[in-house]
Amino acid sequence: MPRPEIVMSTPHRALHLASRPEGLPKDSDFELRESAPAALADGQIRIAVKFLSIDPAMRVWMTEAKSYWPPVGLGEIMRSAGIGEVVESKNEKFPVGVWVSGMTGVQDQLVSDGKGMQRFDAQRLPHPGWALSVFGATGLTAYFGLIEIGTPKAGEVLVVSAAAGAVGSNVVQIGKALGMRVIGIAGGADKCAFVKDTLGADEVIDYKNEKISDAIKQHCPDGIDVYFDNVGGEILDAVLKRLKLRARIVLCGGISQYNATGETRGPANYLSLISARGKMEGFVVIDYLHRAEEAITAMAPWVQAGKLTSKLDIVEGLPNFAEALRRLYTGKNFGKQLVQI
Amino acid sequence: MPRPEIVMSTPHRALHLASRPEGLPKDSDFELRESAPAALADGQIRIAVKFLSIDPAMRVWMTEAKSYWPPVGLGEIMRSAGIGEVVESKNEKFPVGVWVSGMTGVQDQLVSDGKGMQRFDAQRLPHPGWALSVFGATGLTAYFGLIEIGTPKAGEVLVVSAAAGAVGSNVVQIGKALGMRVIGIAGGADKCAFVKDTLGADEVIDYKNEKISDAIKQHCPDGIDVYFDNVGGEILDAVLKRLKLRARIVLCGGISQYNATGETRGPANYLSLISARGKMEGFVVIDYLHRAEEAITAMAPWVQAGKLTSKLDIVEGLPNFAEALRRLYTGKNFGKQLVQI
Repeated sequence: MPRPEIVMSTPHRALHLASRPEGLPKDSDFELRESAPAALADGQIRIAVKFLSIDPAMRVWMTEAKSYWPPVGLGEIMRSAGIGEVVESKNEKFPVGVWVSGMTGVQDQLVSDGKGMQRFDAQRLPHPGWALSVFGATGLTAYFGLIEIGTPKAGEVLVVSAAAGAVGSNVVQIGKALGMRVIGIAGGADKCAFVKDTLGADEVIDYKNEKISDAIKQHCPDGIDVYFDNVGGEILDAVLKRLKLRARIVLCGGISQYNATGETRGPANYLSLISARGKMEGFVVIDYLHRAEEAITAMAPWVQAGKLTSKLDIVEGLPNFAEALRRLYTGKNFGKQLVQI
Repeated sequence: MPRPEIVMSTPHRALHLASRPEGLPKDSDFELRESAPAALADGQIRIAVKFLSIDPAMRVWMTEAKSYWPPVGLGEIMRSAGIGEVVESKNEKFPVGVWVSGMTGVQDQLVSDGKGMQRFDAQRLPHPGWALSVFGATGLTAYFGLIEIGTPKAGEVLVVSAAAGAVGSNVVQIGKALGMRVIGIAGGADKCAFVKDTLGADEVIDYKNEKISDAIKQHCPDGIDVYFDNVGGEILDAVLKRLKLRARIVLCGGISQYNATGETRGPANYLSLISARGKMEGFVVIDYLHRAEEAITAMAPWVQAGKLTSKLDIVEGLPNFAEALRRLYTGKNFGKQLVQI
């Protein structure tokens, strides 16, 4: 006997990519569409999406550029990581009431067979959103990028850009937990105070109010061993001038360039890599997702000990997705940017 | 009893750095000075310099930029590697008649205590100048840059810029000897024919007559594993767009940028390193000089087997040093650029 179909009382609302943005994403680059919720087949679950993770890479997915994932097609639901609660289930691995994280898309609900969805215990976290920050791709990016590409040693000098941001704030704290001397770069007095006082960076540089190259020279008189780069642009160039011998640049992102409508600004000082025998290496977290347990095992004690905390910046409502993106790309977010649905 | 001083019949002639060049070095950036030859003290030798090695890095030494060596000071004798014959000796390790290579400077003779000078058997080489090409820093640069930074595997795709040049021509041949598929980039029909017919590259791209990005796409349909970069600029950017997963860029030089009077052109496509998980790593041969024997042992059989040859481009006369430099920086040289004295 087939089970009776369950019809949701609320329509399925999703943001579809309507046009490829030029510069900063506009509200009109997305179209909100409503539809009747699909019925569940055997093995499927319905997830009520609660929070979306707003990530720098989203700007890349919206272009036609070949990346580690294909572009989001025009008319398709915008791609996003998210977390939600199972509200209806025909899959015994995911009973009603459990929380899951995965690629939910920018929508308020979805039907899934559970593949690629991870259950997590929302009760044990200070906030369910931590499953998208420290214990999500954000935290894994910080952990594996620093450990695998940065190959950090205690006592070395670590510079982190976007240090108040989601990944950067984790990198700062992991660097400190590993005994490094950490210089964070952030924009504005509030973020800088957060980086130094809450995250524990040894020094902080306010890129909006200081001359980057002078400040780096001042705080890194003997040069830089590891640079965790989230932004590219002028900061990357300033760092390149101050590399120590065999310095490592973890190329994690280039948020300063993602919305550039002209040509990307290449790092003019890249030839410093020669005299420093330095390397600049690209890094994508999906290569390390199968080692998530290893990172979580390493980070959990730091969280317990108060060495690793996470600040969330929450925008409410699906229609405010584009605004959340703009907050991220203009540096208005303060902590891990989420959208609450 | 002090030995009597020996007075050379010819004056000591040397080129001194007179001004730091802007753009291409001019004749007037150097001053030819003559002086009475110094007498030898015990333990010293007089070397009659026969050939100077004209190297891309010279342009960097002439600036005030911090590099792996300090800048040449204004008024100092211009730095150069060279080879010569011992013509007078108070050091039994270097009897009259032996050939030596080392940092001779741009001069026709020098007095040395022998430190940093290597003896070599000029008779066993096709031309003594090979001690400055395959068996000099040029060959070591090609060998260690490719092996240590490029970590090449048989069957992988290797792209080499300045492939008809001193280092590049060695890299092409070593790549072939290691079983790689090699695409050389050179300027003009003659050089391209040399790269393909003499050096044995699988494909060659004429950067003066072809659109680099199209040609790379055509010849590397599945992308590039290793890029040995001697030039930077447009070619580096074109390569960055076609990287295979975990590609390695050996950053050996950026000759297209050394004479730039404006800002260096940074590689605008550097963010491709992220999606490719690629690395770009700087390399300086002096880190490997202590392993010279290892490279020579590996390369000698290739030379014997005709797999590794060297083309010399010889300009005559100390006063033509600046012209030899200009030949190098404008790509007019065809093979390893030397100055014969």
